[in-house]
Amino acid sequence: MTRSPEGPAWSHPSGHPPSGSAPLFRRVAVVGAGLIGGSLALAARRAGAVARVVGVSRSPERREAILRLGIADEATAELAAAVAGADLVLLSTPVRSILALLPAVAGLAGPECLVTDVGSVKGPILAAGEAAFPDGRFVAGHPIAGSERSGPEAARPDLFARHIWIVTPGGRTRPEAVERVAALWRAAGALVVRMTAEWHDEVFAAVSHLPHLAAYALMDTVVALEREGPRVRYAAGGLRDYTRIAGSDPEMWRDIFLVNREALLRAVAAYRGALDRLEAAVRAGDEAELTRLLAQARRARKEIDHRP
Amino acid sequence: MTRSPEGPAWSHPSGHPPSGSAPLFRRVAVVGAGLIGGSLALAARRAGAVARVVGVSRSPERREAILRLGIADEATAELAAAVAGADLVLLSTPVRSILALLPAVAGLAGPECLVTDVGSVKGPILAAGEAAFPDGRFVAGHPIAGSERSGPEAARPDLFARHIWIVTPGGRTRPEAVERVAALWRAAGALVVRMTAEWHDEVFAAVSHLPHLAAYALMDTVVALEREGPRVRYAAGGLRDYTRIAGSDPEMWRDIFLVNREALLRAVAAYRGALDRLEAAVRAGDEAELTRLLAQARRARKEIDHRP
Repeated sequence: MTRSPEGPAWSHPSGHPPSGSAPLFRRVAVVGAGLIGGSLALAARRAGAVARVVGVSRSPERREAILRLGIADEATAELAAAVAGADLVLLSTPVRSILALLPAVAGLAGPECLVTDVGSVKGPILAAGEAAFPDGRFVAGHPIAGSERSGPEAARPDLFARHIWIVTPGGRTRPEAVERVAALWRAAGALVVRMTAEWHDEVFAAVSHLPHLAAYALMDTVVALEREGPRVRYAAGGLRDYTRIAGSDPEMWRDIFLVNREALLRAVAAYRGALDRLEAAVRAGDEAELTRLLAQARRARKEIDHRP
Repeated sequence: MTRSPEGPAWSHPSGHPPSGSAPLFRRVAVVGAGLIGGSLALAARRAGAVARVVGVSRSPERREAILRLGIADEATAELAAAVAGADLVLLSTPVRSILALLPAVAGLAGPECLVTDVGSVKGPILAAGEAAFPDGRFVAGHPIAGSERSGPEAARPDLFARHIWIVTPGGRTRPEAVERVAALWRAAGALVVRMTAEWHDEVFAAVSHLPHLAAYALMDTVVALEREGPRVRYAAGGLRDYTRIAGSDPEMWRDIFLVNREALLRAVAAYRGALDRLEAAVRAGDEAELTRLLAQARRARKEIDHRP
């Protein structure tokens, strides 16, 4: 599946908007103000980039939390109440919820309101966003930062500092809408990278979705083997580090796996091939091949440590 | 492959030997004074548990390092010179090298000298040790601590503090030999756990060897996919944590995989089963099953965090 990515268009963060300038957005509705949406709200407020934040959640506990934590000025369970008068709607819910929210928001938002999302899968969301906003006001984006923690309590204003925000404009997306949303992410400290939605989904199937699936599979294996006798108590740092991401929110990852199904299944097939090669070398006692495969993996691992 | 493990016999570390008492060992030969052997030497010297440490390495750089770092009082390339007069030989090389060293040490060591190892696979090493020392002076052990770093520069005296040292005595192993070697590990701060070599190898195939193999396979997958275009640069913390262990020493892990082949292949088969279930749920769009598998993995992951 060879595809040419667009070259990343790195840009430097401005850190803060020009002193004394007007905020980028007057009223931002944050739907699903958890780790990602909450952190962007905190960062944007601190940078003076937004005048007012309205949090939307059906959970009374979450509404209480986002007010207490200073994430939002108002909190409501009503999407319509939050979107009324907003000049930006940020969708930061699990990806299938984003897909469902797009047409609903299109029916509620004013004609100048921009809409953006933070979903980890971009192709289907861009398609749904272009269908819901044929005039190009939807900006599909994905900030590359996170944690196995979730919820507003995990939000922090520096989550995106020196991390990248990927934007995947479609054929209809208005350039000035991309620029205004990008300015908000730059105000939060992020570096802006542009690529196609299709390439985004191939990349993240390999470097994020597959590793999560593999970590979940490993934990499920250990659970199955645990029935023979206690093993997990002997796990050293390796298993602990390795499976940290298996502590991530199951609903969020279920959605990502289902929505990025095709690219994920291709990555899983490649992973099976790598497992096959290692297993065959172990079975055959092929010392040279095993050494080659392990050394190749180690070199790739060191590249991750050394990348900018 | 259901097997009954022996219950772990937890014991408390003594921390230090009784003040003013004689050291546990007068002369310890440490063969392969890297992370593990070097750390034990540092801890035992600090606790006053050994009077003299002799490091054995064919590498002049390593001999220079272990002297400079205070790991050993002497360093030599000659196994015979180090073992002469020793009352303990610690084999802390990759596991296939331990297998090769056992008969060599048996031909060199005095009749009262104890021999122990730190290998991550115990069944074949116990068998080789009992063959080389039919009078039961070989004590097969495995400290559960480590790092993706290796070599004497990574050694530190607190590496084993509050970590477990597993001992896997065989039918011939002398109880008093087990006790003397256990006392050394307790002096280094370790907790002593006893189990059969066979059960040890099943446990560590699942909680250590399989996770390493899976991490190596993941990195090899990313390498293969990278040929289509740059992806690794977009890896977030998840891939980085997950694959930390793929940065481990390839020769050490090649040996572990080959020597624990049967148990590892059983664990890989279980892992393929878990991958199959996740893949089938993704392919079928089976939301309920996917949620169940991910939630089960997450619960197991949280148990790792909460275990003592």
